[in-house]
Amino acid sequence: MEVKNKYIVIKHHFEDAPKEANFELKTGTIALSVAPGSDDIIVKNLYISIDPYQINRMKLSSSSQGTSSFAAPINPGEAIDGAVIGKVVASGNAKFQKDDLVLGVFTWAQYSLVKEGSILRKLESSEFPLSYYLGVLGFNGLSAYAGFFELCKPLKGEKVFVSAAGGAVGNLVGQYAKLLGCYVVGCAGTQKKVELLKKELGFDEAFNYKEEKDLNYALKRYFPDGIDVYFDNVGGETLEAAVANMRIFGRVAVCGVISEYNSAGRKASPNMLDIVYKRISIRGFLAADFLNVFEEFFSKTLDYLRTGELKTIEDISSGVESIPSAFVGLFKGDNIGKKVISLAED
Amino acid sequence: MEVKNKYIVIKHHFEDAPKEANFELKTGTIALSVAPGSDDIIVKNLYISIDPYQINRMKLSSSSQGTSSFAAPINPGEAIDGAVIGKVVASGNAKFQKDDLVLGVFTWAQYSLVKEGSILRKLESSEFPLSYYLGVLGFNGLSAYAGFFELCKPLKGEKVFVSAAGGAVGNLVGQYAKLLGCYVVGCAGTQKKVELLKKELGFDEAFNYKEEKDLNYALKRYFPDGIDVYFDNVGGETLEAAVANMRIFGRVAVCGVISEYNSAGRKASPNMLDIVYKRISIRGFLAADFLNVFEEFFSKTLDYLRTGELKTIEDISSGVESIPSAFVGLFKGDNIGKKVISLAED
Repeated sequence: MEVKNKYIVIKHHFEDAPKEANFELKTGTIALSVAPGSDDIIVKNLYISIDPYQINRMKLSSSSQGTSSFAAPINPGEAIDGAVIGKVVASGNAKFQKDDLVLGVFTWAQYSLVKEGSILRKLESSEFPLSYYLGVLGFNGLSAYAGFFELCKPLKGEKVFVSAAGGAVGNLVGQYAKLLGCYVVGCAGTQKKVELLKKELGFDEAFNYKEEKDLNYALKRYFPDGIDVYFDNVGGETLEAAVANMRIFGRVAVCGVISEYNSAGRKASPNMLDIVYKRISIRGFLAADFLNVFEEFFSKTLDYLRTGELKTIEDISSGVESIPSAFVGLFKGDNIGKKVISLAED
Repeated sequence: MEVKNKYIVIKHHFEDAPKEANFELKTGTIALSVAPGSDDIIVKNLYISIDPYQINRMKLSSSSQGTSSFAAPINPGEAIDGAVIGKVVASGNAKFQKDDLVLGVFTWAQYSLVKEGSILRKLESSEFPLSYYLGVLGFNGLSAYAGFFELCKPLKGEKVFVSAAGGAVGNLVGQYAKLLGCYVVGCAGTQKKVELLKKELGFDEAFNYKEEKDLNYALKRYFPDGIDVYFDNVGGETLEAAVANMRIFGRVAVCGVISEYNSAGRKASPNMLDIVYKRISIRGFLAADFLNVFEEFFSKTLDYLRTGELKTIEDISSGVESIPSAFVGLFKGDNIGKKVISLAED
């Protein structure tokens, strides 16, 4: 049986801030069965993760960071791959059966034709919504957990600053830091997010960076004794201001640099004298390097979700058609928490 | 008995490249005996260490990095303190006797009046020149050793890049890296230094950065497979080029950023996307944080000096009067190896 399959492509590479016009909705067809002897797997996609890092794969220059599959170039006209949760509708591979729920690297489409290697794992039926496995219980959660605990080695009572704290990773970093007993300040781009951070997620303080004339001064206000740990999601002048306000032996984990993802972004020039004299470390990381702590992260995070100590913030749009605006919205700060596309209930 | 005592001061704070006119030779008097009951110590200075970091203490803005004694502001008109080797001529402190050789933080002067706390240690009579205790067997050596081995955790066979490789620290980093079995490339600012690195110190390659139009391209030439470890003494565009050429999990130890020490210096904007995707770490450090490995550093380095596996490059000027030109020369690349002022033989 063949069905229509809507999917999203980029029309061309681009270096500037993304626009919906950079994307195109296409419709193909896909067979919902596999040929005898084939090891193909057909997946009906249920939830698609929308992540800012994908923009780096949409640039002409994307191959310059070609040291990770997270940087593999996306070709115009071809289906875009990313983190997806789906349900197996047909399988030529004995390891996967019809109706298995699977998490993997599939396409921004209604259905995906995949091989075993694209499937990261099977999901057991869950006490939490399936979308959680893309966010708080998935790579965003692992990024927050590993970047904070493994790279920054935070101590109880230390002062922690998180940028893009209303985003998928940032909000979790702040919550983990509070659970450890740190003083936590987040910045975000709307008053609504600021209120959420302070009133719902337990941040000690939060501020709207768009309302600050001088980020350096803003950070001095919230950290009169300096910052021990900065979890960076944005780069640019926020990184500069954080370094200027860091204490000795301060640690910066660089998870993302969304303000530098397009060609117009101001590039960070942190004060190197501060880095030397305050013995600051700045480290980039990818969650994929920390699969060794996945089980620890997953079981602790499940526990926190069960007790309600960790809150989940999701921002869900419906349908393949909504992907371009959802993706573009990430760079305008439209999303609150994890951005997910819901395609089907099952 | 009172004698004349020549010493060097700064006339005023300055932010630009240093000029000899920023300094002034003064002459005071000093008693070569101590009053009964005083715990003063009078030191005749034999060798004075001339180090680039001191310029940061001569700026109006020096207090902004006020998190280390290495950043304590120098006041115009007052004697400048720095690493010195001297001989005790009189002592009211029972721990120090006349004729003891001492290493400490004394003044850029012929004689210094000091307290016990300014003396780091006594030197036993040495098989090597006393000046070595300011360089290869002192803080420069410890900077090279700890920055390379402790921060960068290098492995045999890794590819190492060193900037200011003809300087007091850089030449030692390269030699330590060769002794470990790394591939080592250094950059310097004159052809003479480049020849020294390749022919005398065993660097695999060296180049004159002033003759390169594009440092990024130069590094691609010497590191076609990328850089594992970059020991940074200069900052600026060299740091940017190194980051662009780094391999995954590359490590940068920032010992100094001489190209950014004056207000005209171009500030480094390393590509943050490289830092994330290649999981690069950039860490500033001070040798003083690694006193725990001093004995290990010292005994290994003594052994290397005895066998001739490590060579010592010194650049010695004579007399207090030569301090301003020696210091200014550091920023013009005049010195080859460790810059020392010799004041007296004993």
